[in-house]
Amino acid sequence: MNAIRPPVLTDLLQRQPPGHSLLAPFYSDPEVYRADLELIWKRQWIFAGHECEIPEPGDYFSVPVGEDSILVLRDEQGGVRALHNLCRHRGSLICDQPCGQLHKLVCPYHRWVYSLDGSLLHAPGMQEELPREDLGLISVPARAVEGLIYFCLNPAPPEFDEAALVMGSVARPQGLRQAKVAKAVDYLVGANWKLVWENNRECYHCNANHPQYTRANFDHYNADDSTPRIREQMADAVRQSEARWARAGLAASHKQTGMTTFPDAERNIWYSANRTVLADGYLSETMDGRTVAPLMGVYQSPDVGTVRMRSLPNFWNHSSCDHGVSTRLLPAGPERTAVRVSWLVHRDAEEGKDYDLTKLMPFWQLTSEQDWVICERQQRGIRSSAYRPGPYSTYKEYNVDAFVRWYLNHLRGNFA
Amino acid sequence: MNAIRPPVLTDLLQRQPPGHSLLAPFYSDPEVYRADLELIWKRQWIFAGHECEIPEPGDYFSVPVGEDSILVLRDEQGGVRALHNLCRHRGSLICDQPCGQLHKLVCPYHRWVYSLDGSLLHAPGMQEELPREDLGLISVPARAVEGLIYFCLNPAPPEFDEAALVMGSVARPQGLRQAKVAKAVDYLVGANWKLVWENNRECYHCNANHPQYTRANFDHYNADDSTPRIREQMADAVRQSEARWARAGLAASHKQTGMTTFPDAERNIWYSANRTVLADGYLSETMDGRTVAPLMGVYQSPDVGTVRMRSLPNFWNHSSCDHGVSTRLLPAGPERTAVRVSWLVHRDAEEGKDYDLTKLMPFWQLTSEQDWVICERQQRGIRSSAYRPGPYSTYKEYNVDAFVRWYLNHLRGNFA
Amino acid sequence: MNAIRPPVLTDLLQRQPPGHSLLAPFYSDPEVYRADLELIWKRQWIFAGHECEIPEPGDYFSVPVGEDSILVLRDEQGGVRALHNLCRHRGSLICDQPCGQLHKLVCPYHRWVYSLDGSLLHAPGMQEELPREDLGLISVPARAVEGLIYFCLNPAPPEFDEAALVMGSVARPQGLRQAKVAKAVDYLVGANWKLVWENNRECYHCNANHPQYTRANFDHYNADDSTPRIREQMADAVRQSEARWARAGLAASHKQTGMTTFPDAERNIWYSANRTVLADGYLSETMDGRTVAPLMGVYQSPDVGTVRMRSLPNFWNHSSCDHGVSTRLLPAGPERTAVRVSWLVHRDAEEGKDYDLTKLMPFWQLTSEQDWVICERQQRGIRSSAYRPGPYSTYKEYNVDAFVRWYLNHLRGNFA
Repeated sequence: MNAIRPPVLTDLLQRQPPGHSLLAPFYSDPEVYRADLELIWKRQWIFAGHECEIPEPGDYFSVPVGEDSILVLRDEQGGVRALHNLCRHRGSLICDQPCGQLHKLVCPYHRWVYSLDGSLLHAPGMQEELPREDLGLISVPARAVEGLIYFCLNPAPPEFDEAALVMGSVARPQGLRQAKVAKAVDYLVGANWKLVWENNRECYHCNANHPQYTRANFDHYNADDSTPRIREQMADAVRQSEARWARAGLAASHKQTGMTTFPDAERNIWYSANRTVLADGYLSETMDGRTVAPLMGVYQSPDVGTVRMRSLPNFWNHSSCDHGVSTRLLPAGPERTAVRVSWLVHRDAEEGKDYDLTKLMPFWQLTSEQDWVICERQQRGIRSSAYRPGPYSTYKEYNVDAFVRWYLNHLRGNFA
Repeated sequence: MNAIRPPVLTDLLQRQPPGHSLLAPFYSDPEVYRADLELIWKRQWIFAGHECEIPEPGDYFSVPVGEDSILVLRDEQGGVRALHNLCRHRGSLICDQPCGQLHKLVCPYHRWVYSLDGSLLHAPGMQEELPREDLGLISVPARAVEGLIYFCLNPAPPEFDEAALVMGSVARPQGLRQAKVAKAVDYLVGANWKLVWENNRECYHCNANHPQYTRANFDHYNADDSTPRIREQMADAVRQSEARWARAGLAASHKQTGMTTFPDAERNIWYSANRTVLADGYLSETMDGRTVAPLMGVYQSPDVGTVRMRSLPNFWNHSSCDHGVSTRLLPAGPERTAVRVSWLVHRDAEEGKDYDLTKLMPFWQLTSEQDWVICERQQRGIRSSAYRPGPYSTYKEYNVDAFVRWYLNHLRGNFA
Repeated sequence: MNAIRPPVLTDLLQRQPPGHSLLAPFYSDPEVYRADLELIWKRQWIFAGHECEIPEPGDYFSVPVGEDSILVLRDEQGGVRALHNLCRHRGSLICDQPCGQLHKLVCPYHRWVYSLDGSLLHAPGMQEELPREDLGLISVPARAVEGLIYFCLNPAPPEFDEAALVMGSVARPQGLRQAKVAKAVDYLVGANWKLVWENNRECYHCNANHPQYTRANFDHYNADDSTPRIREQMADAVRQSEARWARAGLAASHKQTGMTTFPDAERNIWYSANRTVLADGYLSETMDGRTVAPLMGVYQSPDVGTVRMRSLPNFWNHSSCDHGVSTRLLPAGPERTAVRVSWLVHRDAEEGKDYDLTKLMPFWQLTSEQDWVICERQQRGIRSSAYRPGPYSTYKEYNVDAFVRWYLNHLRGNFA
């Protein structure tokens, strides 16, 4: 592993002060970025998208991870597969569209033909002794859990079953497999991917930046500033939800003000999911708390609180009774992160009749775009030669600190 | 030479598998790009443009090779010269226009004046003891053959006479010296210059990508898929051409289906030229095979087949009875190639009367632009960390393999 | 200091020929650029702007030096301060506007609050044991002289008092403290900052490039080409000015044709200021020599010649009786310089009534923009692999040579 952790990185890992934001090169140095790709992005399970985006055999979308392009597709047997989007002949991209439908994978350069499982079917004009069986498209492990698709660029991926169990049990009632993407918006955020995660791992910034979000939620409170009144409101909401949700088999699994703790840096728990309550008057994470689309999944009533899921290094989802919002991060350079935010509704819902994008989108579109501004301003500051790591709040940034420890543990090879 | 072939490059040269596309860094690494500039572009004869572009003394055009700018001009004696476009005083560019006409070369910064042969004539305001004779513009060797201008950035260039003989004898009847550039189009292609050459060195991709080209030509056939019928068509065409062309002193020098072999990697033959037949019904490389401009050169009849010339590292030309098309490549970065495609017609032909750009250009404009799309898609694929060199077809990519061997021989110093 | 002067730079410093333009890497290499930032820009006094831009407590503007952002503001006591624009918590920029007004400095991320002197006043949600006294904004030394604001990024700055004395005595009558910025124009010039200075340190290029400038001034003449007639004109102008200016307490301090000598490379004199005469018929540096705004400062008559000030590494100013023009350079990359040109008039002057931008601006806007074209053309030439340092004119480029020696002395650590 020393080849992957060159001297500069080794030095940075030694000098990093605990409980503080990272040393500047972690957020901007091309060598650290390459290490992040090698030690995180090419080893972990990466959230790719939703099964409902590729309902039929031959449906595909492509996912850019750094300079790699991965095709995620539904094969002839109805399974989900992930293949490097790269002809084995002379390296051409095979699909240059972001998504589409095809029967075979045909390279546009010289028409080498591959099946949907990646096997080389036809290489016209090549010598007879070509080892065709060795020249299939490079496949990578793929898994789906309740409609969420993951792949891993390492042929020996980390364990996935426990993650599937934890996320699956919370996700199941939401019905993401019977959903559709009503809208997806792509952003190219001018910040290192870790700054985007740090921003996501605390609601300390919410009061100053997310007025619509704080009205709906309890996350922005914490031990230090949850008044007895607020704590009682949350406890009341949880108590009432328990009574009301019982018949639906739902239960709040996060019951305190403030954010649930995630990740677990020491045990490398990179996934989590829970259900929690919304603020009084909120049935959905929308601008006014009212529902904006038909109920999803098994829900019989809008009163189901809110589902939250997240998995490192690149996924979070908030789902209400009527819609879900998935956020996917992908590294696009030392100081650039490609983000896709997708709004999901029941697959039978019709735009204009059952839902309206102008009501569906603003809550999370605002929250997301407010955060990208924050992250880009922080990235610009961190470029300054005067930047020094600053202290995390033990009250409000415990999850940021946990994320940073999880990250450093990976770079130090502690989980290798 | 070790300074020019640093450790990374040495390692790449050792690891490169024969018969396969190049290892990824050859197509994208800045260090390899610098080696390409030093070992190829600054040592070989580079095609610059056409004599007919600078008919009168003082006419010039500039040629960007990497970060160098070379002025190609006609001097007072009517000769062709090449000079670095760089004032010896403080390094300003002298001409910042791509072409023009001037009597002296005057630096716009402080008005140092140079003659058209590069001598420093006047340096107003400088001290008397200035060694004016040492401060002329830096001249580089230049040669012209039948209207095609070449220069070499090395003061001790490779031998040119044999190239002039070979290309000259084929080019002479075409009359490029009595031509004019009807139109030139500049492209900045997002691919390494070697990918552009690899694309040019096979017609394996033609069926899938160049419908107009394959109707006019025999290149896209090869040993493995030229049916007896096709081979007989070509043989017929050659036989008939021999009978008809004899009185004009023309003869097909490439007589088989498929591409003529080029380059000769072992003997470092970097130039070639031949005349061959077009498909039945084609008098010119145009969309419908009909001529689109007056006959060029010594031709008395449109039935002259097609002239092809090419020289490494940066030139190819296809000429029909009525027009010629020159393609010039210049390196513009590890993953960028500046390409100029020029359409030439008889110098007396008048646009709108004797020819029409909408009929003259499409055949090669389409072919060129189709190829740039291919090259850029391939470059994007090769950036993937999953890219591995793939096998060349021994039937259809022998010239690609020969180009790659020619290139590697230069980088290994085998011709030094 | 060896860490700052790595091997490549050491080699360059040894190879640099005296009396010649710099070796190419000094103008383009990222490593040299980093050394310039460390050894020049982070050690010298940098001109920031004008006191009149921040008249009231809480007024601020930001200054980008490389990747650093410095806030220059007026504090509660009316003093001028400079602070790194960088929250000590997680490194966010605090102000992302180029200028404005505020009462406290509040980080937009988590609302840490700092006073105008940089002290941390409030860090809501942080642990009690936070060492608040160590977490103030990072302050850097700032000075103002007659309305010109300077800061130094080094906490131990070079001596300033002598500079203040020299520039202050010449600047005082001009009344820049009672001025306002009528207009500022920002340029991003595609040239290394040293090329911009070299251009400024000679008027050898003026005849060929600045027709409006040469009509108003005597700088473009020099020992070799000032005819007796021209020298007599200048002497006459100086004699007459002495007689006329006496009662106003003004005197020409530069009395010869050609430019005043600056800098003094051996004694590290990085500032200078003088008053000199304009050409016959010119009362102001305007297109026709006529005044274009009310008299500034203590002037009772327009006949005051012209004030010139300059300080390395980033400031020059030409001021006439009725307006002043300040030029500020900031490094923005190895081959990019951010330039702001500011036109100042008396603070009581009203646009449209007392002055008109279309008459105020052209003289220096033309001169500036003509120079940026020159600098960018030179930068492009210097990128050529054929560039070699060229000889400076001992008659006309003595100040360019002095600037280069000053620069090299700093890089060699001769003043450290």
